[in-house]
Amino acid sequence: MLKRIVLICGFIFLGALGGIPVSALAQDQTQIEILRSETKFIFDSFLFLISGMVVMFMAAGFCMLEVGLVRSKNAAIICVKNISLYAVAGIMVWLFGYHLIYSIEPGGYLGSFESWGKAEDLKSEAYSAHSDWFFQMVFVATCASIVSGTLAERIRFWPFLAFVVVLTGVIYPISASWLWGEGWLAERGFVDFAGSTLVHSVGGWAALTGAVLLGPRSGRYLVQASHKTKKRSHKDRSEIIITPMVGSNLPLATLGTFILWLGWFGFNGGSQLALGSIEDVSQISKIFVNTNMAACGGVISVLIATHFLFKKIDLTILLNGVIGGLVSITADPVSPAIWQAIFIGGIGGIIVTISVPLLDRYKIDDVVGAIPAHLLCGVWGTLIVAWSNKDANIFGQLLGICAIGLFAFIMSLLVWTVLKYSIGIRVSEEDEHLGLDQGELGLEAYPEFSRHK
Amino acid sequence: MLKRIVLICGFIFLGALGGIPVSALAQDQTQIEILRSETKFIFDSFLFLISGMVVMFMAAGFCMLEVGLVRSKNAAIICVKNISLYAVAGIMVWLFGYHLIYSIEPGGYLGSFESWGKAEDLKSEAYSAHSDWFFQMVFVATCASIVSGTLAERIRFWPFLAFVVVLTGVIYPISASWLWGEGWLAERGFVDFAGSTLVHSVGGWAALTGAVLLGPRSGRYLVQASHKTKKRSHKDRSEIIITPMVGSNLPLATLGTFILWLGWFGFNGGSQLALGSIEDVSQISKIFVNTNMAACGGVISVLIATHFLFKKIDLTILLNGVIGGLVSITADPVSPAIWQAIFIGGIGGIIVTISVPLLDRYKIDDVVGAIPAHLLCGVWGTLIVAWSNKDANIFGQLLGICAIGLFAFIMSLLVWTVLKYSIGIRVSEEDEHLGLDQGELGLEAYPEFSRHK
Amino acid sequence: MLKRIVLICGFIFLGALGGIPVSALAQDQTQIEILRSETKFIFDSFLFLISGMVVMFMAAGFCMLEVGLVRSKNAAIICVKNISLYAVAGIMVWLFGYHLIYSIEPGGYLGSFESWGKAEDLKSEAYSAHSDWFFQMVFVATCASIVSGTLAERIRFWPFLAFVVVLTGVIYPISASWLWGEGWLAERGFVDFAGSTLVHSVGGWAALTGAVLLGPRSGRYLVQASHKTKKRSHKDRSEIIITPMVGSNLPLATLGTFILWLGWFGFNGGSQLALGSIEDVSQISKIFVNTNMAACGGVISVLIATHFLFKKIDLTILLNGVIGGLVSITADPVSPAIWQAIFIGGIGGIIVTISVPLLDRYKIDDVVGAIPAHLLCGVWGTLIVAWSNKDANIFGQLLGICAIGLFAFIMSLLVWTVLKYSIGIRVSEEDEHLGLDQGELGLEAYPEFSRHK
Repeated sequence: MLKRIVLICGFIFLGALGGIPVSALAQDQTQIEILRSETKFIFDSFLFLISGMVVMFMAAGFCMLEVGLVRSKNAAIICVKNISLYAVAGIMVWLFGYHLIYSIEPGGYLGSFESWGKAEDLKSEAYSAHSDWFFQMVFVATCASIVSGTLAERIRFWPFLAFVVVLTGVIYPISASWLWGEGWLAERGFVDFAGSTLVHSVGGWAALTGAVLLGPRSGRYLVQASHKTKKRSHKDRSEIIITPMVGSNLPLATLGTFILWLGWFGFNGGSQLALGSIEDVSQISKIFVNTNMAACGGVISVLIATHFLFKKIDLTILLNGVIGGLVSITADPVSPAIWQAIFIGGIGGIIVTISVPLLDRYKIDDVVGAIPAHLLCGVWGTLIVAWSNKDANIFGQLLGICAIGLFAFIMSLLVWTVLKYSIGIRVSEEDEHLGLDQGELGLEAYPEFSRHK
Repeated sequence: MLKRIVLICGFIFLGALGGIPVSALAQDQTQIEILRSETKFIFDSFLFLISGMVVMFMAAGFCMLEVGLVRSKNAAIICVKNISLYAVAGIMVWLFGYHLIYSIEPGGYLGSFESWGKAEDLKSEAYSAHSDWFFQMVFVATCASIVSGTLAERIRFWPFLAFVVVLTGVIYPISASWLWGEGWLAERGFVDFAGSTLVHSVGGWAALTGAVLLGPRSGRYLVQASHKTKKRSHKDRSEIIITPMVGSNLPLATLGTFILWLGWFGFNGGSQLALGSIEDVSQISKIFVNTNMAACGGVISVLIATHFLFKKIDLTILLNGVIGGLVSITADPVSPAIWQAIFIGGIGGIIVTISVPLLDRYKIDDVVGAIPAHLLCGVWGTLIVAWSNKDANIFGQLLGICAIGLFAFIMSLLVWTVLKYSIGIRVSEEDEHLGLDQGELGLEAYPEFSRHK
Repeated sequence: MLKRIVLICGFIFLGALGGIPVSALAQDQTQIEILRSETKFIFDSFLFLISGMVVMFMAAGFCMLEVGLVRSKNAAIICVKNISLYAVAGIMVWLFGYHLIYSIEPGGYLGSFESWGKAEDLKSEAYSAHSDWFFQMVFVATCASIVSGTLAERIRFWPFLAFVVVLTGVIYPISASWLWGEGWLAERGFVDFAGSTLVHSVGGWAALTGAVLLGPRSGRYLVQASHKTKKRSHKDRSEIIITPMVGSNLPLATLGTFILWLGWFGFNGGSQLALGSIEDVSQISKIFVNTNMAACGGVISVLIATHFLFKKIDLTILLNGVIGGLVSITADPVSPAIWQAIFIGGIGGIIVTISVPLLDRYKIDDVVGAIPAHLLCGVWGTLIVAWSNKDANIFGQLLGICAIGLFAFIMSLLVWTVLKYSIGIRVSEEDEHLGLDQGELGLEAYPEFSRHK
């Protein structure tokens, strides 16, 4: 840039000497710059569109993952929920969400509630405003998708949708505004490139609070007063017996996981927010590689861990290993070397493997394993940025994790509590037994296949 | 390269003489323009390729939607049909279709029948001719995909494929030529940006005529002579009892819908036909947002409408609500404000919800609901352009809807009639009972799962 | 425009007055060239990313194709295998593979074993090094995916994964280095644009050798000593009776095929290795069209061939016809005219149709038909390049097919043999009967649907 200014100044000087049409040369320089910035505008907007499109497809990925991991009597309602939450997210991001994120004062705590799309919103010299809106909107939908799986098989549809309204219209936008809207967290050295904390752990906190308030599926955990055969130890007096409630369609769950893997290239890659320079496209390329390798790390570590811990490989944990690896790298897919990306994702896989039984011990019934994969790996991925990225430090990361976590936790708890004690959030015992598809929809997902368990 | 070096050397020489090489400055201007148009060429062609690729994937979306909505005994033949129709569309668009669309005289009625790919076809200064061909071809395939679902569970395979030959080789290309080939409709103020009428209602008319000539599935509508309990009213004497024949795999149908939603970004976005300018990419971005929001509108309106009308949410209507919303916005995804897009899609959802029972009243058996979603919403979407787009008016829109509709209706009716009274279009009663998979293919789609209903 | 003309006229006038700073003009020329090469860098890298992303999704396509074609008792392990092999491919390409391909001396036979990602690896002036690595990596994963289907339903998981380690870390990279790394084959006139031989037949040879050493599924082929009714001919004395072991979920297999079809646009299109010039994007467009039309040709020829040979259309052969068509065009999707592409793919469809019974005669049990589709069509597609591409000749093609084939065959045979006689590659008779999901994983893919056959 400086070089260019010097050059132009040089031309002016030379021109003054010899009768040069200085304005003409400057004109050409400017024309080149105009073309460069036009091309960059197109590239950057196109990145938002292409990335947004594959992130949009993650809605299908979550839907298939969840539908494959629930019992068939609750499969159709999962489809209804995933389509509906995506639609609600779109509407809410348009109504409040987007403006709430980006209208915040620098260093501020709260933006303003206004719908998006007025003339002044649409001015941007760097990219198309609509393309950015689209990209941000699909992020919000992703956050909401996380919640739906954990609470499957016993939550009522309309209260769930009401929660999604608040999550996508208020909770997510406010937390995102703190960092991505240049709010107060942005000034505290907190690094979260594509949303390990801002998207995934926010969704995870919403899922966790919901799961606690909703309670486990009926019959899932049976507490036995004493162990019949062992009388020696007092610690054995009460024991949780977990009734397995296995997914009905693991190939669809696998497909969903692959779709999420695909979508993550858009999720992390698009978060570079620009494509139209050599540096940008090189960064995005590095992001693609690291994102992929973290998922590979998650797979390999789950393969090894489940083989040694359980003597068998567990497909559902493997699927969550992919997601755990991906969530772990999301806080910073740019800085790590490849081996670091593999390591970060690999630990994500371990976290998923060991925390599933942990949740069961506390009788938190997470149908699809979203809390380990999105919340715990989101925390892990955000923390470890302090290691791979020299611009981050452990205190900034902890501050961000705690601030966003506390906010998401309290807000979610509040909303779930209000919903629980007003309209109620849980289906009747009978509907749960019949399956929500019969109870809430009056149809069956696979009318010719299932023998309900 | 050499040429450029020579040029630069020339400048130096001329410059040394003392006079200004005026042509050199003009040369630089030209060089910038050349680079701009090269870059635009690449962007525009790449838009066709990327958009065409996701529209191609809509073939998978239609296939999964349809396979999920038929009974399992007719699932494999749906797969065969959807693969085959896509292949036939490719061949026919190459043999006649493309040339037929674009060889029409300005203001004309009929282009000429010739295969595509000769040297003169491949000249284009604005984009790669092959990229455009690819994009147009996948549109034709989309039109054919619409037909297959409506006629499922009772049509014979080869006559169906024969119909597709005519639809993709003649009917679609001729109607498309009238507007997109700059034929007579293009001069009459008819606006159909991405094909609510040209693609979706043409497919819908073909489906409707086929459904009428083919008749409903056996046992679908039982007409009872008199109502046993009510003797008072004469109007009650005959009543249609509808036997529900429910889809066998709703999760796959949901996946198909998500794939279609994804593909629609390519379908509508690619219809901008150019990416390589700030205006183009901004328009495409707006198209992405409006396309998405219309689908969201369709979802929300179906959720509310089915909840109040039927007391339950119906997943299959919800899926059609997505498609109805998308078809509705397709005639003009550029002009509407976001709230208008939501409204346009929302009415699409309502249309789908209320017209399914309407078709049943006339004993038109549309297995997947393609007639409401593609034909009726196609008409609605085309009409409403007169409201959102100031370049359109209701008369121009009505003219287009009627002209294309009449042509597609008459041609389809003709072809179906010829097929019906020559080789026959309907499977035997026995094959229909057994399922077309057994009857026509001799295999089962899910040999281990189904208990045929 | 007018403004520009006025400006240029102004320059002419001013220029006539005085001397010109020649260096400045050269400077502008250089600036334009810099912008051109920057833009090209972005386009070319972006091509690798987008293409790589859809090729990555082919892993999901292979997984769904295979999961749909196995019996449900072996469906979950197929998912585990497909996820794991993709992860292993990523790790191995990073550890050795990539460096092995590209560190080879021009005309050489073997590169060096080193991991990728050091500073000197990342220097490239033409595109982002990471983007290229990503694109190459997904190719390796594709090669490994081919193997998994053939050996389904009886191979043990860990030995399979061990084979994948060698295949993706050594066998594939060495063969690829001979041509794509500019090794000895590159100088012998061998043409294989996107890998009919280098990717597909290498995977096919690995599958074939594995199938031979592993043996057929138990009960698949029963040899009857004599034919009861016919006693006249001595040739009839022994006859192979083939027990059909049909796929459990053909709609998923169809979805997988569509995903592969989609991915192939990235596979062949991305192999142009550059997007950022008019020539490049035009070539890629032609590749898209030819790739698509070859698949269409495969579909049409299988429809006709199975109709006449078996009187019924076979969906599973149709799916392989798509893939056979795609593999056939992969060796050169650039040169053929459209009719040639249809023909080349069409013959691919015929090859698939007639060679399935052929494999059965030799009791080679290929569960998904990967050997006909990838190996035989890979050979066919590579040979026929001599016809469509004037830069190729039959001897060069034969040399490449034989050299790569021999290497892949011997290496695979060696690795499978070592694995067979060390840790063993086949599951126990009991596990095979129970299904590998129960035996190796202890879970079921569809616990509520299946009645195991």
